[in-house]
Formats: sequence, structure tokens, C-alpha cells
Amino acid sequence: MKARLEAAYAAQQNRTYYAAWPESPRAYAEDGMAQGLAAFQSLLTQNFSALSQTGSIGWVGEEVSPYMMTGLGIQYPQFTSETLIQQANDAQLVWGKTSADERAAVLLDALDRVAVKFFDIAYATMHTTGQSFMMSFQASGPHANDRALEVLSMAFHELNRFPLSVDWVKNMGKFDLQLKKNYKAVPKGIALVIGCSTFPTWNTVPGLFGSLMTGNASIVKPHPKSVLPIAMVVAEMQAALRAAGLPETVVQMGVDTLDNPITKHLAEDVSVKLIDYTGGSAFGDYIESLSGKTVFTEKAGVNSVILQGAKDPVAVFGNLAFAASLYSGQMCTAPQNVFVSADGISTAEGSLSYDDVVAGIAQAIKGLAENPKMGAGTLGAIQNDATTQRVKSVEALAGAAVVLPSMAIENAEFPDARTASPAVIAVDAADIAQWKHECFGPIVFVVKTTSAEHSLALAKECATNLGAITCSCYSTDEDFMNRVEDEMNAAFTPVSFNFGGAAFVNQHAAFSDFHVTGGNPSGNASFTDAQYVNRRFVWVGNRRMA
Amino acid sequence: MKARLEAAYAAQQNRTYYAAWPESPRAYAEDGMAQGLAAFQSLLTQNFSALSQTGSIGWVGEEVSPYMMTGLGIQYPQFTSETLIQQANDAQLVWGKTSADERAAVLLDALDRVAVKFFDIAYATMHTTGQSFMMSFQASGPHANDRALEVLSMAFHELNRFPLSVDWVKNMGKFDLQLKKNYKAVPKGIALVIGCSTFPTWNTVPGLFGSLMTGNASIVKPHPKSVLPIAMVVAEMQAALRAAGLPETVVQMGVDTLDNPITKHLAEDVSVKLIDYTGGSAFGDYIESLSGKTVFTEKAGVNSVILQGAKDPVAVFGNLAFAASLYSGQMCTAPQNVFVSADGISTAEGSLSYDDVVAGIAQAIKGLAENPKMGAGTLGAIQNDATTQRVKSVEALAGAAVVLPSMAIENAEFPDARTASPAVIAVDAADIAQWKHECFGPIVFVVKTTSAEHSLALAKECATNLGAITCSCYSTDEDFMNRVEDEMNAAFTPVSFNFGGAAFVNQHAAFSDFHVTGGNPSGNASFTDAQYVNRRFVWVGNRRMA
Repeated sequence: MKARLEAAYAAQQNRTYYAAWPESPRAYAEDGMAQGLAAFQSLLTQNFSALSQTGSIGWVGEEVSPYMMTGLGIQYPQFTSETLIQQANDAQLVWGKTSADERAAVLLDALDRVAVKFFDIAYATMHTTGQSFMMSFQASGPHANDRALEVLSMAFHELNRFPLSVDWVKNMGKFDLQLKKNYKAVPKGIALVIGCSTFPTWNTVPGLFGSLMTGNASIVKPHPKSVLPIAMVVAEMQAALRAAGLPETVVQMGVDTLDNPITKHLAEDVSVKLIDYTGGSAFGDYIESLSGKTVFTEKAGVNSVILQGAKDPVAVFGNLAFAASLYSGQMCTAPQNVFVSADGISTAEGSLSYDDVVAGIAQAIKGLAENPKMGAGTLGAIQNDATTQRVKSVEALAGAAVVLPSMAIENAEFPDARTASPAVIAVDAADIAQWKHECFGPIVFVVKTTSAEHSLALAKECATNLGAITCSCYSTDEDFMNRVEDEMNAAFTPVSFNFGGAAFVNQHAAFSDFHVTGGNPSGNASFTDAQYVNRRFVWVGNRRMA
Repeated sequence: MKARLEAAYAAQQNRTYYAAWPESPRAYAEDGMAQGLAAFQSLLTQNFSALSQTGSIGWVGEEVSPYMMTGLGIQYPQFTSETLIQQANDAQLVWGKTSADERAAVLLDALDRVAVKFFDIAYATMHTTGQSFMMSFQASGPHANDRALEVLSMAFHELNRFPLSVDWVKNMGKFDLQLKKNYKAVPKGIALVIGCSTFPTWNTVPGLFGSLMTGNASIVKPHPKSVLPIAMVVAEMQAALRAAGLPETVVQMGVDTLDNPITKHLAEDVSVKLIDYTGGSAFGDYIESLSGKTVFTEKAGVNSVILQGAKDPVAVFGNLAFAASLYSGQMCTAPQNVFVSADGISTAEGSLSYDDVVAGIAQAIKGLAENPKMGAGTLGAIQNDATTQRVKSVEALAGAAVVLPSMAIENAEFPDARTASPAVIAVDAADIAQWKHECFGPIVFVVKTTSAEHSLALAKECATNLGAITCSCYSTDEDFMNRVEDEMNAAFTPVSFNFGGAAFVNQHAAFSDFHVTGGNPSGNASFTDAQYVNRRFVWVGNRRMA
């Protein structure tokens, strides 16, 4: 157990590539997909019975597959916030007294159990979020487990940072003052983890495993439209707790409905001391404003591309098109605004005009979307109808500036799938009503600026005031790239330079890339720096006369 | 430089005794006191000219010696908050680009320069805070420097936690994806450090050195009644910056007056991202409520003593008397409420009644206060007249419950000194109007409870709801002590058991004892855990196509 955590911690410190679950027992088995699909299908229209929580008041469930456009019909036990809190407080009495070693063993066991279910969870993710099967498998499977392990190993390290006890001796001249001291990492209390609809496990498990590893019983409040993937994970966690003889209610699911949400009741309860939140900025700001809570948020942002120059512009357009199209722009890391100078960009074959750049990007996106082998699998489906509506209203506002309208893309396997390829809109920088706010979904603005410096200034301003999780820069000018790095970093935004090939700005690798910096309005926390775990407990030292 | 920081860091991780400044060049010199006194006296009634800050709008100063009860007459340059912010922003452009090594070298040099002035600073501390000379020397001298070094070494370690750059390689099957990545610890912005009147350097330097080491230009806003000690420290810091060819305004003094405070202007300025605060709870709560700031507070608390049993009660009363009398109860670590069961306490010679315990404590306090060799030196003087008035009004409310009234204690060296020995008040636990709130200063309540368990419950309740920085427990019952530790730790309060001899609950040793846990209302931060430094900067990673 310790060796696994230490290996993961070493990789995390070295920021090198590391994957804990490249080949789990069933994850890459030949019949894995078939078994996963069968497992998923067996749950449809049933009550989800794998959770070990008593005291439910009914059954709720309102998930809809963005691929089938039919309800999944899965019902989950419903609990009052009072019952969840009471059971969490009861479980905390036991969990709070376990050692870091015990907790690490249980939580590693939980991850191993989750790994056996990667295919099941993949289908659950696909049919709640609209992610493609491949992304569903990766994001909710090994990548989520990797992020959870990253937090576990960081927390395990920090919990063992100071000795459990020490003999302290101070020479006072004629005698020694001797004290016996101990140091305890005291858990803060009950933790609430509020999930989002698009990445129900990947965005939930880091905070969840962080709070649990540091001794805080936890309640998962999933998005009502994306319950199943994380319910499967929590069921495995409860199984690991049960196997260890610990209360299964150390981690609970608190499923609610859009009409009767319980999130605020939970968040405002005095027992809840820790809150992890992924979702929109308005609710995130409310969560951050709660007093007496330690809060970790990932909210919305406006990600920029600063396009100054490129040796091979067609390759750049292709990379950009993929980054914007992947999961139809529903990733928090997807680019929204591509800043291009009115003077165009420099290339190996001379300069390319702004209009040519716009046309190149539009062509690349169209080509990808209409590629029968690539389009449907890259775009996936649209999780929420509000996203589809947003694309329409943004296009209506843009009018003639729409260079490439969003299109429904045929999905051979799921003819009813709700799909939308990225709209490409060419706007002048002055037209801020269009581009200078978050437009979640498949929408790309190519913003005409007065210069590359102007592009940088606008990207920085967006990051500072609206938040940004990523920034992409294409340039052949080393000085300019250094300025971009300095300026965007000052807005606490990471920059990816000249990405091509298999490198996409959307992807943040566990153990190497910090996801969200916590320094700008896109969120106040980072996967995974030390404070991501240290803020979940309190060091308390006691002294006894020797 | 690195060896010093690594040695300090190792001691901090081991929690063992370590003192960086046991013998500084002049600190323990034979003529140190005389030179320090002369230096202090040379500053009286003068303009303080050692600061390197331009743009002042006048001179202000309203310090009064609690020993001489006359104004010091020292005037400090006055600045508008706008000037301070502007100069800090200018300095930040340079300071933010220095390396961790450069900053560490400058700040260590600053501490070495401060060490040469320990005696000067001691007299300055004595005649602003009312601390005894010995406490002034220790607290504002080596102990403050130790705390600053503790933060420096922790910050240096954390800033070097991740590699500056790394070649990241991920095998993608048929090819390797290769990226060059770097990791930067980006400073959050301008830091404001708000000092208090009783410990103007000890409580200021941890946050100040923490913010500076992590790259944030800083403004010190001292309490208008306790400016000189920290002004001396800042002057030395500016000298170190000057010697390194860096802007002296990387650290600035922002002196104001009680009638025209600038604290809120500074705290609310958008450039100010970090705030360290020591002082009363009302203003501390305001500081914590500011949005967009990272805040570290040490506020008020109500410290408890749980007196259940003692082999040698007279020794316990003596230890308690000293803890309550040291600096006339004006330490944030001083005990206020002593909880004793109505059944009394168990001793080696049978039980001792509640009344006998009250009498024993009162007698020990009286004996110490009236001891001509001990009294004046232990009590020091009262910093603020409001404290004297508080003692009077508390006594008036208590009426006949006053077992030992507060007394003025003659100070042979300073006949006009404002002094007050601890009042001892015997109250029933039910009389919460008297004891169940903070009564800063020389006031001790001996609270009669129904049992030792009741004592513990009340101590925990106070810590949870009112905050506590220390808790002292005297007991001969191992089971009870374990319960006290568990329960008080759950309220994020450290416990000191059966302290006697040279061990006093008031004293928190650098490199070993966490000062304030940050988990209860007495403050939200701790000297020095990892988050105390990690929250002052943001990790940002950049990636380039290899």
C-alpha cells in the first residue's frame, strides 16, 4: 500500500508520466465492452440497489441519454439532507479515528474495485454526459482513478509530514526542560462534494478522495442528470468500507432532482465543513461566499487561443479544430476565443490574412465534423438542451458573422443523438457583447484584434476577469511566447505552446499538469497542489510534562 | 544560505528544539543592554528617518510608554494608501521576477541585520507594549526571528517542491508524445500585514516573511501605538534590499493614527491579494469577509484550564499563577477560565475543595505579584488603558465574587508604570454573563462546574464557539486526560498537560509548536503549517511542443 502511494507521490513530485491503471483486471479485457454494456443495460428502468444507505424516503431519477434521447429510468434512493447529515456525523465518529494507513488501504481498495467496473462506468458516463465511448472510458475510468490516486498520495504524504510524537528537550542552562509532544491531523468535519453533469466522476473523485483520506466522512451530491457513473463509484467505495468493517455511510450518495434540490440545505448545514464544487460560476460564487466552510471550486472560464504565427497553419487549424470539437466544446478546458490580428499571422510561407485564418479554422472544423470516421466519435452528444439553445441564440446574435453554422452530425449508432458541431463566428474585438463572456458548448469566436499584443492583452483580461483554465498560443516568435507566458501566468493561467499532433490543450495529465490553478475566477483550487489536501485537516499538537 | 534553511526546515519537520539566534553578534554582548538603551533613547522625540520610502505627506506618531506614561514623541513618515499601493505595485514588478534563491538570501540577510538590533528592538518593544525587558528581548528578538526563519524555510521548501522544468514523455503506442513543461510559483500580489499593539514584531514577521519569500511585495500596517519595534525591523529589511540592489519599497511601513486609520483602504484595494491580521475578533471577522483576498488571521479566544487533579496542587497553583500573570494576562496564550468541579480536585494527599483551590490560586497570584523580585518583572505594564478599565468593570460586575482584586504593583524603575495584577473571580458555571466571553487582560475566573466532565464540556464549548489558542489540563487520571485531548483537539485546540517547573502554557516554541491551529474562531491560520506559505502563491505549469 505504502509502496504504491510512494510511487505515485514520486511521479507527482517529478511531474513525469505515470498511469496507475493502464491495465486493470477487466479494463482492457476482450469482452470488457460487451460485459460493460450488458451491465449498464441491466440497470435501465430499475431501482439502483447497489448503495448501502438506509433511511430513504423514496426513489428519484431523471437521467436522459443524450444518445438515445430517452430517459434511463434508473431510480436512486432519496434521502433528506437531515438523514444524510445525521448518518455522516455517525460515520464520522468512526472514520475520524481511523489512521492514515487504514484510510489509505480502504481507499486504494476502492479504486481497485472501481477499475474492475471501468467499462460499466464508461457506458454510464456515455449515456448521461454525451461523451463518446472512448472519452467516457478514459475520463471516468483510468484518468479519474489517476486523479484520485494523485490526491491520495499527496494527502498520505502530507498526513505523515510531521512525526506522531517527539521528545522535546530544551536546555535551560542548569537543567533541561523536557516535554513529550504529539501531533495530530484532525479532520475538519463533514465533506460535501457537488458534482457536475459533464464529468460526473473525473471532477468528483479528487475532492472526494481528498476529504476521505484526510478523515472527513463525505456526501456526494451528484448532478441530477449525471448520477449513474458516480453512483457506481460510490457503491464500490461502500463495498471497500464494508470489507474493512467500517461504516458504509462514510461515503453517501445524496441524489436529488432539479425541482427539489437539496444542495443548499447540505452546504449550509453547520456540520458540513468542506465543500468541493464543480459547475457554473453563479452557484460557485454562492458556495465560496459561505462562511465557516473550506471550499474548493472549479467554475466557468473563457479559454483563449492566441494565434500569432505558425510554421504549418493547416496543422494548427487541425489541432484547434479537434480541441474545439472534442465532446462538442463541453470540456472546461476547450478553447472559446481565438485571437488573431487583423494583420493576419506569419507562416513558413509568408503571412496569412485574418480572413484566410478564419476560413482555415472553419474548414478544419467542418472537415472533422463531416468526416464519417471522426465526426460523431469526436463530437459525442450534447449533454443539456440548454447548450443546443445557446448555440442557436449565439448564432442569431452573430447574424452574418457566422462563418460556419453549427450542424447536427449524423451518428450511425444513435440516430436520435443530440449533436452539434462547433459554430465558427468571426467578430471584431470591439464587439464584446458577442465574445467576451462564457459561451459554454460548441462555439468558437475568431476575434479580430489590432495586433498580437492586443490579442495577448485581451486573453489576459478575460483570464483575470472571467477566469481561464487553459490558454493556447501558436507563435514562431520566442520573445512573444515568453511575454505570453509571463502575462498569462500573471493571470494564473497556464499556456500550451504550438500544440500539434497528439497534443491537445484540453488534456491535463494527472501527476504532471495542474488542473485549474485556483488563482483566477475559474476556480479557487488546483488538482493537485499541497493545499488541496492540507486545507482539509488541521494540525493540532499536544504537550505533556515528561 | 541553503544549508541554513535546510537545517531550519529539518528541525521544523522533526519538531525538535532549534534556535537560530542563540548568540547573534551583539545580542548577548556585555554592553548590549547599554547600547540598546542608548539607541532607543536617541530616537525619542525625533523623526524616525531610517525608512527608505518617498512620497510622504507628513509625520505621525502617538506611541506612549506604558512604563513612563509619557509619549515617545517619535514621528513616522505618513503615506496615503494610494502611494503605498502604487509603490508596492512598482516594487512588485521587480520582486515578482526574483528567484526563490535571491529572495531567501535577502531575507536571511535581513534577519541577520535584525539580530544585531535585538537590544534596540527590545527597548522599543518594552516602551510600546508594556512587556518586561526580558520578554521584550525574547519575543521581539530571537523568538520573532526564529518564527520568521521557520516560515522562510517552509516557504523555501515548498517553492522548490516541484521541478522548474521537465521533459514529459508519454508512450502513445506507435510513437512518443513529448512535451517540455515548466512550473512556476506565481506570487498572488500585494501583501498587507496588520500588526497588533502587544506583539508588534512576533505576530507580524511570520506573515511578512511568508509573503515576501513567496514573491509578494508587502505593506506593514502597524498598530498606531506599537510602531517602533516593527519600524526598526522594516528598516533593516529595507537595508538588506538596498544592499542587494533591489527596491527598498518591496517592504513598506504604512503608519496611521487611531483617528485616521488607513487599514480598510489598504485591505479593500484590488491590488492587495494577501492579508495577515493579528488583533480583535470584530475587525478580524471583517478581514475574513473580504472577497478576493487570501487571509491569515489570529483573533481573540478564551483559553481554558481544566483542573481535575494534581499530585502537588501548590506547584500547580504556582504554575498557573505565573501563566496568568506573565505580561499581565495580555498574551493571546494566557489562561482566562479555570474550570474546577464543585467536588474539588484530587491530590496526592486526598481531595481539595473548590474553595481551597480558589484560595490556592489567589494566594499564588498574590504571592507572585507582591514578590519584590518577581512581581514587576513578570507582570510588566498594561499596554492599553482600556485593559485597565476592563478589569475594573469586570470586578464591579463580579462584586463579592472577587476573591483577589487586581492591584497596581510598584515598579521601582518606573514609578509611573501602568500596572495591574490578575483579578481572581470565583463564579458558578451558570453565571455565563461573567466568564463566557473574552476578558482580555489580567482577569482569571475560577469557574465552579458540576464535575470534571462538565469542565471539559465547557472548555470545549468555549473553544468551539469563542475560539481558543491554548488549553491547559491538570489531571492524574490517564483516561480523563485522553478524553480531554480528544475532545479539545476536536475543537482544534492543543492541550498542555500537567505543566510545571519551567513549562508554561503561554509559550509556543518555534520549529516545534504550532501557534494557533486555524481550526476554531481564534484564527484561520497556523504558524507554521504548509498552507501558511502555499496559500501565498499559485502553481502554474506551461507546456511546449518538444
